[in-house]
Amino acid sequence: MSERLETILRHVDARLDQSRDRLFELLRIPSISAQETHAGDCKAASEWVRDQLVSLGFRTEIRPTPGHPIVLGHFDGPAGYKGPHVLFYGHYDVQPPDPLDLWTSPPFEPQCVDGPRGKRFVARGAVDDKGQMTMFLEAMRAWKEATGAIPAKITVLIEGEEEVGSRNLEAFLKANKAELASDIALISDTNMWDVSTPALTTSLRGLTYIQLTVKAAKRDLHSGLYGGSALNPINALTRVLGNLHDADGRIQLPGFYDGVKPISNARRAQWDSLGFSEKEFLGDIGLSVPSGERGFSALERLWARPTADINGIWGGYTGQGAKTVIAAEAHAKITFRLVPGQDPDAVVDQFKQFVADRLPAGTEAVFEGGHGSPGVEVNADSPWVRAAQAALTEEYGKPAIRMGTGGSIPVVVSLKNVLGVDTLLMGFGLDDDQIHSPNEKFEQTCFHHGIRSHVRLLEKFASA
Amino acid sequence: MSERLETILRHVDARLDQSRDRLFELLRIPSISAQETHAGDCKAASEWVRDQLVSLGFRTEIRPTPGHPIVLGHFDGPAGYKGPHVLFYGHYDVQPPDPLDLWTSPPFEPQCVDGPRGKRFVARGAVDDKGQMTMFLEAMRAWKEATGAIPAKITVLIEGEEEVGSRNLEAFLKANKAELASDIALISDTNMWDVSTPALTTSLRGLTYIQLTVKAAKRDLHSGLYGGSALNPINALTRVLGNLHDADGRIQLPGFYDGVKPISNARRAQWDSLGFSEKEFLGDIGLSVPSGERGFSALERLWARPTADINGIWGGYTGQGAKTVIAAEAHAKITFRLVPGQDPDAVVDQFKQFVADRLPAGTEAVFEGGHGSPGVEVNADSPWVRAAQAALTEEYGKPAIRMGTGGSIPVVVSLKNVLGVDTLLMGFGLDDDQIHSPNEKFEQTCFHHGIRSHVRLLEKFASA
Repeated sequence: MSERLETILRHVDARLDQSRDRLFELLRIPSISAQETHAGDCKAASEWVRDQLVSLGFRTEIRPTPGHPIVLGHFDGPAGYKGPHVLFYGHYDVQPPDPLDLWTSPPFEPQCVDGPRGKRFVARGAVDDKGQMTMFLEAMRAWKEATGAIPAKITVLIEGEEEVGSRNLEAFLKANKAELASDIALISDTNMWDVSTPALTTSLRGLTYIQLTVKAAKRDLHSGLYGGSALNPINALTRVLGNLHDADGRIQLPGFYDGVKPISNARRAQWDSLGFSEKEFLGDIGLSVPSGERGFSALERLWARPTADINGIWGGYTGQGAKTVIAAEAHAKITFRLVPGQDPDAVVDQFKQFVADRLPAGTEAVFEGGHGSPGVEVNADSPWVRAAQAALTEEYGKPAIRMGTGGSIPVVVSLKNVLGVDTLLMGFGLDDDQIHSPNEKFEQTCFHHGIRSHVRLLEKFASA
Repeated sequence: MSERLETILRHVDARLDQSRDRLFELLRIPSISAQETHAGDCKAASEWVRDQLVSLGFRTEIRPTPGHPIVLGHFDGPAGYKGPHVLFYGHYDVQPPDPLDLWTSPPFEPQCVDGPRGKRFVARGAVDDKGQMTMFLEAMRAWKEATGAIPAKITVLIEGEEEVGSRNLEAFLKANKAELASDIALISDTNMWDVSTPALTTSLRGLTYIQLTVKAAKRDLHSGLYGGSALNPINALTRVLGNLHDADGRIQLPGFYDGVKPISNARRAQWDSLGFSEKEFLGDIGLSVPSGERGFSALERLWARPTADINGIWGGYTGQGAKTVIAAEAHAKITFRLVPGQDPDAVVDQFKQFVADRLPAGTEAVFEGGHGSPGVEVNADSPWVRAAQAALTEEYGKPAIRMGTGGSIPVVVSLKNVLGVDTLLMGFGLDDDQIHSPNEKFEQTCFHHGIRSHVRLLEKFASA
């Protein structure tokens, strides 16, 4: 290891508490992109990011969008820099914290508590993506404070709508294509294999989200006086959605699997070699029996097969006790996770057809949403993927593996389609981080190693 | 008509506004029995009823129960009274007013507004049962004020848990059997045939209510990271409940129809003669296509066939926008309407079996509720039924008909089983009164005729 690198890493170690304190400032801002009442908080979070970048010497602007703003910063790097122009992407928005009563501490009052792996940070956004995103800012800060300079040419783009489908991002990329020209994108929004095994993620599922409302009578009805004659939209909704899958877990939309290809034997062999234990994976969350399509391995079901999950359902009386009512409406939110070969827009159309084919006459279906992104395979055969693997391997003292994820990072698709750049997905989350759930947390050790890994990666870019 | 009767009826007409004002006092008390936060309001409503009965000369007590209290009043009637000892039953509790945003005025601020049939009262409980119950109190008051005396021997029992299944009533009847001994029960909690055609209700459906919770993981999960492996309890719940009915609308619980008998040809002929238009019935609530079992007439489906309606469903994220979560739990409230021959307890067991047969391994089902009452046929061949028919026929100038209702009044079963008395169901509601729905209303003309009909019925009892 170079003496310079050693100095910077020691700087990171010595100032970890300050890094954490800065992250906690951001975690205190409830920047929930899905809820209009939090638009001001999203703005505040964007301003916090801007101030960080300004303090690092970036030329930074908050750029408006039709939704929440995008923070964009540029840093030219040292004179004579020969490495890649890096485009770092992250997001400052977070998921809603519901159900609130399951949190052990308020979601926007970050805590640093002791856990089985040492200290951990508990807050909405602790890992997704505020914690992961700030690791890169902290790595740049360590370079700057310890050596006087950030060693690479870097553009930072931090958006505020990742949790609602990045609905204004692609238009922004298109409108600012020249300004965003770069050689490689870098994102920290994925997981490690486990707490001691670093990983690069090279395949992602896509997703499409849609909300269905079934409408029947023009008002709520008494189930005694009308039951047996009046359509019940909740009955109808369950009848439709209860048939989303067949007995083998196959999704029943017409044409849903048309573009889905089996994974290659090489990939299957690599995944099998990982020794993934679904029993442990499910045991950690209190489950014992796997779900999903029959006939596929657990990692195939998680990383390479599409899904249909009802994320929310509601209708009628949901308070305490009984109310013998036939509701006027029933609602559900559904997400389809997609794999390469599936077109999100086509899936939306298939779902609408599926619903139309099954809803009883006399009901009305109303759809909202329907935005999505396809699944993606990252080109793993590039010098920058190798550089990232090397940085991780050196940091952890064991080889970094290549894995898939069942989650979706639509921006990876947009970065490829609009800007023509591949993305390095170098993330430090763990499976039990409870992202999108109550008590989301980030292990301090992951945060710490993550900053150090980014410090190392910057050095590899600088010495390219 | 006797001069005395004419005097009392004129008294009713002249003081209708005061009758309405008294009803409005009671409607202002949000006595929602299903919600614990309204226990104090239920108590206040019981006190209001007690005060009314005391002012009518009843020996009255508020009797505690494990739930909301029962008001019990006795009046001995005139010396030498030879008519039946009448047990009048009503309830002071109401359904929750949700969804609140669909009310045109606050549910507990009663309004007297103009409608197509003259004035109407709008409030939760306007008809069910505060409006109907107070008609009888007002009829007694008119007798007392106009003649100085109530002419019959009367016990009044007003409970506060009808809307939550009358869960403490039967024990109360058993514990006070001697005190409640009577010849005929009288209830105003049913409908007329239409606004100008009075009716006695002689068949009622029963009901059983049950809440199902499906539990899967011990916390909410990210649908990307877990989808394809982790069980989704909302998917599972829709899969179970979506199969409650077959394509012909038949309920799929094992053994559900075992005790269900077809109605008699005589009854079918009488119902057919009523000229019921399901098209109009449904058109009034914005529906065009009937639901329910194939192969039965509308009135059979409404009055003489069992149903299964999901009254409420909820789980996962139900706020604005998207949240890609797999929930830990999903919930539904279900009511089965039952007909004579079906045992409510057996239906609960059938439902539990139905769920157990269909839920995927690895989920847990939790049941709550499960209280119910069977369907009932009232013995229509009694002098008091004939007296009530005569009173109605004289009041409206046209014959009172005998009809069924799809609703349930479990107390009718308890009164028969515990006290051995039959019940006169003489009600003045209309199909469009929106009971259990936003903007519940009671037509002033129905309230007015209802008081007058009770005045007439009291005279028939007195002259028996």
